[in-house]
Amino acid sequence: MQEKGLLIVLSGPSGVGKGTVRKELFSQHDTAFEYSVSATTRLPREGEQNGVDYFFKTREEFEEMIREDQLLEYAEFVGNYYGTPVEYVRETLDAGRDVFLEIEVQGASQVRNKFPDGLFIFLAPPSLSELENRIVTRGTETEDIIKGRMKAAREEIEMMELYDYVVENDHVENAADRVKSIVVAEHCRRERVQHRYKKMLEVE
Amino acid sequence: MQEKGLLIVLSGPSGVGKGTVRKELFSQHDTAFEYSVSATTRLPREGEQNGVDYFFKTREEFEEMIREDQLLEYAEFVGNYYGTPVEYVRETLDAGRDVFLEIEVQGASQVRNKFPDGLFIFLAPPSLSELENRIVTRGTETEDIIKGRMKAAREEIEMMELYDYVVENDHVENAADRVKSIVVAEHCRRERVQHRYKKMLEVE
Repeated sequence: MQEKGLLIVLSGPSGVGKGTVRKELFSQHDTAFEYSVSATTRLPREGEQNGVDYFFKTREEFEEMIREDQLLEYAEFVGNYYGTPVEYVRETLDAGRDVFLEIEVQGASQVRNKFPDGLFIFLAPPSLSELENRIVTRGTETEDIIKGRMKAAREEIEMMELYDYVVENDHVENAADRVKSIVVAEHCRRERVQHRYKKMLEVE
Repeated sequence: MQEKGLLIVLSGPSGVGKGTVRKELFSQHDTAFEYSVSATTRLPREGEQNGVDYFFKTREEFEEMIREDQLLEYAEFVGNYYGTPVEYVRETLDAGRDVFLEIEVQGASQVRNKFPDGLFIFLAPPSLSELENRIVTRGTETEDIIKGRMKAAREEIEMMELYDYVVENDHVENAADRVKSIVVAEHCRRERVQHRYKKMLEVE
């Protein structure tokens, strides 16, 4: 019997570096899980490719996916929709392979309801002030937007409660290594593997 | 305030290769936990050093340690005592460093009672028949002893229930890597780190 894959969910405050950690993970040849590309209505940033970084959708297209129940989760964030197409996730898990989602915190709690035994990882800033620096140095935001994001970040750090693990994004390579260690460890959790050994005893 | 270190307990059936995995771990320069040397009344095997592999004790010395409550756990196994001197463990944990114990399954359940939030890892054979091969190829045991050990191994695999993680000892390097990943992951568990972030919110 094929065992199901693990659903790995990486989330955290806006600006903490989720996308950078995800790119680091998928640039490493020994990363053994598959990336579920999100859909979004936001415009591509420089260098972002459709179908690789996101599936870029119009607002109309996205709302059709919502109506047709094609999304595992979705959220509206700073005026744009972000969501996870459900079909790829289910097919990959059913084939026994691990799937990795990088999503906003609003979406993560929707996924938790549908996949309670998923592996939920919260990417945390080394400090809130560091988070502010990162948002400021992106250099494209007004002071009001920055203040609004800081408030959101405080609320999101309080949302840590819903997660299994917290990974501090001190350096992207360290954060990526910790995520990989967490996935290895989860595959070793007794609850997940015990039935294999019970079978071994029955057979002999 | 100094946070306490993690207590890491590696255990598993006799013959599964606990000592080999432990040696592999402590031969790697980036292993960030400290080895708690056990005490035993069994005779040194070739190459084993007092104070490095074990503290080798007479039966009388060992029973005095039991009476004076100097052992975190102890077990009698194939006619010999094995135990963990408690003082080193407590001092190292209090100093915020992780301590690694490699002990028999009988001892592990005693430690579980005293350190319920320790990290309990069960080292498992790839299959029971493989376990039998390993015990046979050590080449120093009679058939009755081998059969007795097989029965014990079946019972011990059923004892997996008490552990947090199961690491299959398919290859010693893989098993050691999984143990290290588990320790990294445990340091990221939300319950363990959440209070740090709550403090961060209070300070700002």
